[in-house]
Order: sequence, then structure tokens, then C-alpha cells
Amino acid sequence: MAGNSFGTIFKLTTFGESHGSAIGGILEGCPAGISIDFDAVQKELERRKPGQSAIVTQRKEPDEVKFLSGIFEGKTTGTPIGFIIENKDSKSKDYSHLKDLYRPSHADFTYEKKYGIRDYRGGGRASARETACRVVAGAIAKQLLPEIKINAFVSSVGDVFINKPYQELDFSLTESNPVRCQDLETAQKMESLIREIRKSGDTIGGTITCVAQNVPRGLGSPVFDKLHAQLGKAMLSINAVKGFEYGSGFCGAKMKGSEHNDLFNADGSTKTNLSGGIQGGISNGMDIYFRVAFKPVATLMQTQQTIDTKGNLIEFKGKGRHDPCVVPRAVPIVEAMTALVLADLYLHNHISQLFNNHL
Amino acid sequence: MAGNSFGTIFKLTTFGESHGSAIGGILEGCPAGISIDFDAVQKELERRKPGQSAIVTQRKEPDEVKFLSGIFEGKTTGTPIGFIIENKDSKSKDYSHLKDLYRPSHADFTYEKKYGIRDYRGGGRASARETACRVVAGAIAKQLLPEIKINAFVSSVGDVFINKPYQELDFSLTESNPVRCQDLETAQKMESLIREIRKSGDTIGGTITCVAQNVPRGLGSPVFDKLHAQLGKAMLSINAVKGFEYGSGFCGAKMKGSEHNDLFNADGSTKTNLSGGIQGGISNGMDIYFRVAFKPVATLMQTQQTIDTKGNLIEFKGKGRHDPCVVPRAVPIVEAMTALVLADLYLHNHISQLFNNHL
Amino acid sequence: MAGNSFGTIFKLTTFGESHGSAIGGILEGCPAGISIDFDAVQKELERRKPGQSAIVTQRKEPDEVKFLSGIFEGKTTGTPIGFIIENKDSKSKDYSHLKDLYRPSHADFTYEKKYGIRDYRGGGRASARETACRVVAGAIAKQLLPEIKINAFVSSVGDVFINKPYQELDFSLTESNPVRCQDLETAQKMESLIREIRKSGDTIGGTITCVAQNVPRGLGSPVFDKLHAQLGKAMLSINAVKGFEYGSGFCGAKMKGSEHNDLFNADGSTKTNLSGGIQGGISNGMDIYFRVAFKPVATLMQTQQTIDTKGNLIEFKGKGRHDPCVVPRAVPIVEAMTALVLADLYLHNHISQLFNNHL
Amino acid sequence: MAGNSFGTIFKLTTFGESHGSAIGGILEGCPAGISIDFDAVQKELERRKPGQSAIVTQRKEPDEVKFLSGIFEGKTTGTPIGFIIENKDSKSKDYSHLKDLYRPSHADFTYEKKYGIRDYRGGGRASARETACRVVAGAIAKQLLPEIKINAFVSSVGDVFINKPYQELDFSLTESNPVRCQDLETAQKMESLIREIRKSGDTIGGTITCVAQNVPRGLGSPVFDKLHAQLGKAMLSINAVKGFEYGSGFCGAKMKGSEHNDLFNADGSTKTNLSGGIQGGISNGMDIYFRVAFKPVATLMQTQQTIDTKGNLIEFKGKGRHDPCVVPRAVPIVEAMTALVLADLYLHNHISQLFNNHL
Repeated sequence: MAGNSFGTIFKLTTFGESHGSAIGGILEGCPAGISIDFDAVQKELERRKPGQSAIVTQRKEPDEVKFLSGIFEGKTTGTPIGFIIENKDSKSKDYSHLKDLYRPSHADFTYEKKYGIRDYRGGGRASARETACRVVAGAIAKQLLPEIKINAFVSSVGDVFINKPYQELDFSLTESNPVRCQDLETAQKMESLIREIRKSGDTIGGTITCVAQNVPRGLGSPVFDKLHAQLGKAMLSINAVKGFEYGSGFCGAKMKGSEHNDLFNADGSTKTNLSGGIQGGISNGMDIYFRVAFKPVATLMQTQQTIDTKGNLIEFKGKGRHDPCVVPRAVPIVEAMTALVLADLYLHNHISQLFNNHL
Repeated sequence: MAGNSFGTIFKLTTFGESHGSAIGGILEGCPAGISIDFDAVQKELERRKPGQSAIVTQRKEPDEVKFLSGIFEGKTTGTPIGFIIENKDSKSKDYSHLKDLYRPSHADFTYEKKYGIRDYRGGGRASARETACRVVAGAIAKQLLPEIKINAFVSSVGDVFINKPYQELDFSLTESNPVRCQDLETAQKMESLIREIRKSGDTIGGTITCVAQNVPRGLGSPVFDKLHAQLGKAMLSINAVKGFEYGSGFCGAKMKGSEHNDLFNADGSTKTNLSGGIQGGISNGMDIYFRVAFKPVATLMQTQQTIDTKGNLIEFKGKGRHDPCVVPRAVPIVEAMTALVLADLYLHNHISQLFNNHL
Repeated sequence: MAGNSFGTIFKLTTFGESHGSAIGGILEGCPAGISIDFDAVQKELERRKPGQSAIVTQRKEPDEVKFLSGIFEGKTTGTPIGFIIENKDSKSKDYSHLKDLYRPSHADFTYEKKYGIRDYRGGGRASARETACRVVAGAIAKQLLPEIKINAFVSSVGDVFINKPYQELDFSLTESNPVRCQDLETAQKMESLIREIRKSGDTIGGTITCVAQNVPRGLGSPVFDKLHAQLGKAMLSINAVKGFEYGSGFCGAKMKGSEHNDLFNADGSTKTNLSGGIQGGISNGMDIYFRVAFKPVATLMQTQQTIDTKGNLIEFKGKGRHDPCVVPRAVPIVEAMTALVLADLYLHNHISQLFNNHL
Repeated sequence: MAGNSFGTIFKLTTFGESHGSAIGGILEGCPAGISIDFDAVQKELERRKPGQSAIVTQRKEPDEVKFLSGIFEGKTTGTPIGFIIENKDSKSKDYSHLKDLYRPSHADFTYEKKYGIRDYRGGGRASARETACRVVAGAIAKQLLPEIKINAFVSSVGDVFINKPYQELDFSLTESNPVRCQDLETAQKMESLIREIRKSGDTIGGTITCVAQNVPRGLGSPVFDKLHAQLGKAMLSINAVKGFEYGSGFCGAKMKGSEHNDLFNADGSTKTNLSGGIQGGISNGMDIYFRVAFKPVATLMQTQQTIDTKGNLIEFKGKGRHDPCVVPRAVPIVEAMTALVLADLYLHNHISQLFNNHL
């Protein structure tokens, strides 16, 4: 209802503002008996955290997760997994200058219109810090689905993009560079562009492509909760996302049916995959792939005009340590949200037919 | 859970296959005391129904809605609004040739993998016929929100597109041509292209743009249920949709922050609207606009290779009366889903703050 | 949200007023591949319908269910099962005398306070006619769970009650008398009492006991959705119910722990069953049994004082054909709601652990 | 889904085992702008906590709540309220003797059957410690509804009961004695009985009655979510509860309609209140009152026979510090759950009609 939950069976509910004492969440519906690799969870958090490289924000947040329940002697118990991440670097004083103004293209104005009150410190609930909780839950989802391989990567920054199909990329190289682009030549160009943009006090947008491989056939559902509709919502719920397309995407809208149809092989696989691994809202066993557009970060290190809460036009310049481009740090978030969607649908499929597992 | 519902407070649940005796739905959460204009509901159904013009499928379905409950003496009573639309043209015999094969890029294969059983007559639950129920509910949602203006239109068919901003279009012209494109010159080119495509037994994709105007500030929520995430899911749940972008969309991913930020006017409106009327997941009172990509229809009047349910490669050619291009008929569906999202969020906003309406 | 749904995975949503053109529902989450015995469904409806014996209301409602979707060639397809029951005996003219008054201990007054509008014909949405939809869904739930035996019966009418434990009753005798009490001597006394009450234009309350046998271990959940909490809610949602107790119930509140604890046998069964088959909110494999209290029907064939909608005191006497005692007809409803709870929890248990049924 | 949430708009989700590092919860849907009285919250926790008097368990748990989010400068912000209560007295070593056995009438056996794994330390998730989170949320619910007065009290312990109507009790005396019974003579008898029972190493059941006054008309809904069905579920979800009745309750099942109907006064109030303030599932403005049965605590300080996890019969005697009777400490829990139900329904009612509060 209040929009703090994602999933139905495998369900994450989060809480927390960027400058409260902690953020955290409750992960429900994780089946009992799964061994949790805590290092793997923490490693995903490290991929998202600020300060990890020269091209991201230099804020220091240790982002250490504490699990409070639902895991006993290293295994899930079937009860809700509560966890928190303390906000250790929440220098509230940095934010007093934001109290009485609305930053352009931020959530300040809209939150105040909705709630009549706003935690102005660093974006409050609107801060992308909330996504750390998604990364924790996504890391557990990945452990529930060890066979499924989920790989996201930066496919463009500004006008610089990877000019080859994902099949030619080596996913083992994702962490080899700070941009998280496996096409190393393109990665260098992207990194140069980001450094240049940062120098000018500006920011830049980009896209992330994500590929989920080895997904079982039959995940998703026919009508409102089509697999791609759920993936789309998952991605559009990430801060700064402006668009989502899967398979042929917007290009598919220019094509003819005779070009676009994916013909079958005898084993039910398809010769092409413009469907993006999903037909009628349900996975067909082929690779699921999609692309997500991120706008440039709205906080600039440049002076901009804006208004205060009384409607006076004022000058405003961002302070603090912000990302010149969010896509490198958003890669693990995209993967986490993908894992959450697939874990939920995977569990759903235990009840779509009654297999031979009558009690 | 099972994916047949949309919305939380203002909530539609649908049922029905294309060739059962009826499709229908239950609309819950409509406040009591709303006067229903039944003609307006039926008119929306007419916009969606087959056979309405020369460029859409020539199937004849009267698509007449019968309301069974929840409305008394012309007004909503606060109880669930049950309704059905009978399937009068369901010639089941037409479909026996589909029983033992999987059509390319259809839901046949994936449904059977999920459920182990499939109503093979005309797509069953996967048929776009289900969207008639959404149009009914959307028409009621529009009546709940008389101040909000929702206008969708065909912005491209194949390579033919409207080359001007939506602000230059006259929305009163939407129904003036069978394509539902207000730029009349472009509309003619689109219509010609569709006729040509149909002649060749092929199909073509397209895009729809939708604009919601006069939306109150404060609709939406901060995290998983951002307004644009809900719109995105709504659109991606429509048959044949491959992508969604709002505001600057995928173009925004190429821009700098200094270009992309929407500066405020003193009254809280913004000088530009790359945000697409939504900031931090919540409406800011500016126009909400977004674009939806539709793939070409998968059923061709051409012979294609496919497989039967035993995995033998066979030849297959579509029969019956299908749309060469879905976007003209999808316009009212896009509008209906937009109305459903906004109606739900509008009701949510009665409880985000406690206004002066204490007990 | 709006309170028209029951269940989470196996989920029924109903609509309909007693005097609209039809009532109906959507049953979601029924796994694909279940063969439906339509006669069994209709037979359950016959048990609930008016006019079935001399001691119930003499209204004539054929109560014939039409399935509109979700079943193909006799089997469930995994898609939602839509159904309607037409209201053939809805003589609206009978009810005009109810338009401007509030009957004592009915829902007239409270509905109008909530909604500001009311379908005054026969109780509208408040009519027990809605429970026919529950009986349809419950009959399908029973078919999903063929091993589980659910038997409800009338355990008291007014002061007349069965003075023996349920273990001494022969459940095959339930339908042998119009009261639905297997203790035949007591049944006769109950029937006499009901006839006498009816003759005086009065009504009388009663209780129903329900026993669910052969329930698998492990159904239910630890905290808010304890098995008995869900059964309690299910029962309290039936019209006229005033109380619910399971196992030792209210008597248990007088006992000592040393008397009340159920000691184990070596196989995990228990020597006594004051727990009522549920421990910690989860089934333990023993019989689940509970008791439900029904108040006397509020519509009397006697003159009572009441008020009109303007607050004037007036005289009022019930018209039409009402039940002098609801419990005989409520037996199939209690069974249906029990089946809905157990079916939902049974499906839940496919995902509480990951068994060997990894995809 | 997983049963850790209560409510729909005003919604609490809890996590935590008795012997993890903390328990906690997320409260969603609390409107923005409510000033929180933290002392009032803590005071409710003190009423529930162990060690507060000589007749309850002597465990020492400080039960101090830490709010982590959703409240800024003393006011709710509309975002989720996350909170934790640390488990400071969790001496895990005390519980190793429970690892390999199933205690009679506990959740040990059923949890292990459901999940295949069990946190055996002090009951894990089945521990009544979880209810502390409900008390926190309930205390906030009470602050949302300052006009509504909710008073619960111990109405019986074993065979000792209050022999007068609640109207004759002075609710200001609830905290005047450790039993929480306002009839002081009866309270003394109850206290003596509990001391005696404790001395014998046994336990005893009891009942709690709860009265909610000044409840607005119109709360609740017609069908599955009747107000009393939601109250019943709320109560039955509390540990050790065996039964629920409201208004006339089980006594009503023995009455005639002519005795049971509540006749109206001209102002819409009723002369009697056997309805318990609820008609047709919706509040009518009269006092809501109900009674809840609690079984005796299953942990005895006596030797009992039980089985180990291999099915061997063994002797078992409870250790540690347990309540001889739960009802005194359950009084604030009953009130909290009542407040949660009413707060949720109160918010629901902002959208049942569209009042004059159009945006």
C-alpha cells in the first residue's frame, strides 16, 4: 500500500532515511534451509557503496549490514529476515542549507506537497541510500537461485556506448574497471568522459543493460503481472531511471512481424531472441535482457537558479560529495532488483501446477 | 498474487479467456456516490473493439458491458462493481488447428510450460480481449477524476512518426482518423503504411504517446511504487508492449545535468519539463507524458516455420482476422491504464496527511 | 483492501447484491490441472439454498452457478475462475417499504453512515446471499484437498445442544435431517424448537461445530496469520456470527496447564487434543475442531419499534420469507470457509521449505 | 503472505526471535504530521514487559524501543517508521536443553514440521516476545485516534471472574493492581489464585475483556473484512488465545431474536447493545466490547512426559522464569491490537465516500 514493499511471496519491505540512525528492511518469504553466504552479501554492498573508486562520490559510508533475525546457525529459518545498516556518516549539519529551498529536479518540492512535512537532510527517504537495502535482499535472492546468472553492465554514458551485442562481452570483466563496462576500450572512454564532466561540476546520464541467463521456463504470469512488467516496475523504482525496454524494445516498434518473430528450434529454443526471453509475460528459457535509462544526477557543483519554500527565486549550488554519473554504482542495484523479481516468480511457480509434490 | 489484479485501493481484478462464454471483472474501492455515465463507458469500449475501421481486425465483437452490482439508481454504492462482456463471436472451431502447435512469438509455448495445460482457442487468457475489461474500469476511473485530462495518441507506426512536440497537437482530433494520430498528414502516411503491410500479410509495430494534464501535485510514492514505476508496469502489462519511457526517457540518458534539470518558476511550476511531471516518484503538477513501444503483431497471414507440441518442425500460416498493427486500438487501453493508476493514487492521497477531515 | 477478497494464494473475490441481476466471484490461484466435479459444486449450493426444507426460508432461488472462465475441457487452467449466480427471485417491489427506515440489528443504519448511500433491497451487499459465492469456491477448494475431511454440523439451537463429543457422531448422517445434526434425537428436539419459534414469528440462535480431519502437519504461520486466527476471521466474516473458539476454547481459560497440555505419543500425535490440532498457529496433524456462535436472525414476523431515516420512531414488521434459525443453512458455509482457509495454507506450504522440487 | 504483517493501510510488519540480537518492525501508512509522544509509547511497553510485578515472569528485559526512521523533529513524515527493541537478556545457553525435544503444547513440533529447521532458543519466532512490537505500533495507533478510548482488563482467571457489567467498572483503576482488574475485590482473589498456582509449579488460563468507546460510525466493511472479523483475527493472533466473542457472543446463540434485537433511539443510538457496537460488520457508534480466552501457559515447573526429536519418550521439566498466568501482561497487547484494527479502518474511511476533501 504505502509503497515500501517489493514482491509478493519473496517480499522485501524497507525503511529509513539517509540521515536517520539506520536504514534497514525485512525480507519475508525466503524458504527455510538456505545457507547464507554473508561475505557474498557484503561484497554486493561494497559494489554499491560510495567511495569505492575515483569516479564516484567520495562520501564514506561503511555500509555494513547486521542481520537481526531469520537466520540461525547460518541457515534461513523461514521467518522474516530483519536487517539494518547504520548511517555512520550522516553529518546532518551539512544539510541545513537545504531546509528552506527546493532543489531543481529533486524530490524536495513534491514530497512537501504530498506530506506537508519533509526530512530535508540529504533527500530523506528519497535518497538512493535506500537502495542498499535492496542490494542486501537481492544478494540473498541470488543465493536462492544459484543456477540463474544475472549480469548487468554499463552500456552507455552520455554518447559513449558499447557497439557490440552482449553475447560478445566477457562478464567476468565487470569488476575490472570502475565504470563496470566489460568492453574495456569503451570503458576507458566512459571513464574519461565522467572525469571531464565531474571537473566541470556537471553530471551525465547513462544506460545499464542486464542479462539473466539460465532462467527456467514458465516464470511470470499472463495479465497484469507479466514478467517484463514486473522487471520494468523494478527498474523504474530505482532512483533516476527514465526508461525501460526489453528484447527488441523501442527498435521493435519499427519492425515488421516477419522480421520480429522468433522461430523455434525443435527443442523449443528460438533461432533469434527479439522476445528477450519472455513471451506472453512468461519466460521461455532464452536469455532475458533489458536496458535501463538513467538521467544525469540533479545535484550539480554549479550555481543554478531555484526557489525557496516561500516562492522566492534564489541561487543555489550543490555542496558535499555527489556522483557525477550514477550508472557505475547502479549496476549492483539493477542486478539486485532483477534477482528479487526472479526469486519471487520462482517461488510462485511451485504452485502454478500441482506437481508430484503433494504434501 | 496470481496477477489478475491492478491497483490497491481502486482495484480491478479480471477474468476470462477469449473463447469462454464471457470475460469480466470486479472493480473494488470506487468511492460511493459517484454518478456513472454508462454511455461514456460504452463509448470507450467502442474505441477498442474490433471491426471499427478498415485498418483493424474485421472480427465482429459487440463488446457490450453488463454491470451486475455496485451501482444503484445510477450511482456507485461503495460495494464492488461486477461486470461481464459476453463473447458472442467466439467461433471455437476456427482454432482447432492451434491445438497441437506453438505459434512463433506467441504465449502458446510458455503457457504450456507454466501450467501444463492451455486453452488453445484464440490465445485463451493471453488474448488482448482481456483488455476490454481494463477499458471498462478505466472509463469509470476517468469519471472519478473529471479534472484530469488523459490523451493518448499514435506517435509512430514503423518508421513514420509525428515530428513535433505534443504541445502542438490538437487532442480534439484524436478520433478524426482511424489511426488516432492528431497530426493529420502523418496520420495519412501511417494509414497508407498499415494498408500496405496488411496487403503483404505482414504486421508492423508502433508507439503510443500519452499525456495526462491537470494532475494534482503529490500523487505517487517515494520508493518501490513511484508514480512512473506504476505507469511503467501498467503499460508493460498491455499485450505487445516492449518499452516505456517518460519525460526525457532514453534521450535523458545522453544529457548533462545542467541541460536536464527543470528550473522552477516562483509558483512551483517548472520552466522546462524533462522530468515528465514526476520528481522523486511523485507528481509535481506539470504534464505527465510518456511513450510506449508496441512490437508488430505475431500472427501473420504468411507461411512461417514453427514446431508442434512434439517438437516437429512444421509450416504454419495464420487464419482468421487479425490486426496488421495494434497501436490504433491500443490508444484507449493506454488511456484506461493511465486512468487506473491515477485514480488509485488519487485515493491514496486522501490518507497521506490527515487534512482537516478528522473523524 | 475493500474487503471483498479472502485468501492470498487461493483467493476468492466476490461481488453482488441480493437484488442485482447476479452475484458472482473470481477464484484465483487454483493450480492448473485439477479436474472439476461440477455436480459436487452444485450439490454444495443446494445445501445452502433457500426453500430446501420446511424449517428454512421458503424463498425460491435456484442458485445455479455458471462458470465463465478458468476451466477448459473439465480441468482448471491456472487462470482465474470467473462465475456468476443469477438472481432469479429478486422481487424488488417487496422491498420498497425498507427504503426509508433502519431495521433493528441490521446493517441498514451502519451502511448508510459509511457510504452515504444504500441499496435497500433485501440487505444489498449485506445479504447472506453473498455466501453462495463462498460455497462455490469452497466446493472447488474441497476438490483440491481430497484427503482432508471437513464436517460441520449444528451443535446447538437455543438451549438444545448435543451432549456428546464429536467423536461419537456419525458424519454420514449430516444430511439425514433438515437441521444437519447427526445426533438424531437431539436433531428432532432442535427441529421442534425451530418450528415453534417460527410459529411465534420469532427467531433463534445456535452454534455450529466443525471438524477438519486428516489435515497435513505444518499448515499455518507463526505470527499474525496463525491457522486458528485465519479460521476465526473466516467464521466471523459469515453473517450473524458472534463468536469463535477452537480446541478447548473458552473452557480452556478456566484450566490449569497441567490439565491442558497435550502429551505426545512417540509418533508425534498427542494423547489428548485440547490444542484443537493447532500449536503455535500451525497444524500438528490432529483433528482441527472449532465452534461458531450464530445470533438469532434480526428479521422477525413480529411488530417492533424502530426509526425511519429522519429519526422518527415507527412501527415495523418483517415481510417476506425469512429463516427462523440460520444454522442449518450455515453448515455448508462454515465448511466452505474452512476449505478456503486450508486450501490457501496448503498451497503456501509448497514454498515454506524448498523440497526436492527445484525447477 | 508470510504472515508477518497486520493491517492494510496502517500496516505493521514485524521480525525477530526471542533470542536474536533484536526484534523490531516497520509501521507503514501512518499519516504525516502526527506528533509522537515517545514516553507514552515506552509506557505501554512497560505494561507488557516481564518482571513488572510479583505475579509475572521475573525475566529482566528492559524493552526499550529505538525508532530508526519515519519521525523527524518529533513528527511523523509519512515514510515508514522502523524500530527495534534489543534483546539484552537473551541467555542462549539456557536453552540448549530444548534443542532435541518437543515440549508439549508448544510450537516446537509444528515449526519443525513446517520449516524443517527451528530456532530452539526460547521459542524463537513463536515467543510472545514478538508482541512487544505490536505494543509499540499500537501505542502510535492510539495517538492517531485520541478520541477513541480503548480499555482492556482481566475479566477472569481460572474460575474467578468479575460478576458485574463493564459499565460498573472504573477504568482509571486498571493499573492499580498487578492483575489489571478494576474490580478490586475480584482482583485480590485473582492474585491469590495466581500465587497459589505458581507455588505448585502450574499455570492457569483466563479471559480479557476489551471495550472501545467513542468509535466513529462507519468503520469496517461488509463482507470478509467485517470489523469484528478483523478484531477476532487480531485477538486470535496473540499467543495462547483460544476464543473470541463480541457483543452477546456465545450467549447470543441461545437467545431469541425478540430478545436480541437492539432497538433504536431517535438519534440512532440503541437502547441495548447486544450487537457490541457492530452491525453488518460496521461500527454503529455504540461501545464495541469483546472477550478473549487465553489458555494456561504450556511451560510448567513440573515434570511432564514428552518426546525427543527421534520420537523417544522422555521426562521434561521447564526451566527459567515463566508466567504462571499470561492475562495480566496480555492486557496492553489486546489494547494494542484493538488500536491497530481501528486505526487501519479509520484511515480506510477517508476513502469510502468522497467527502468534500477533493484534492
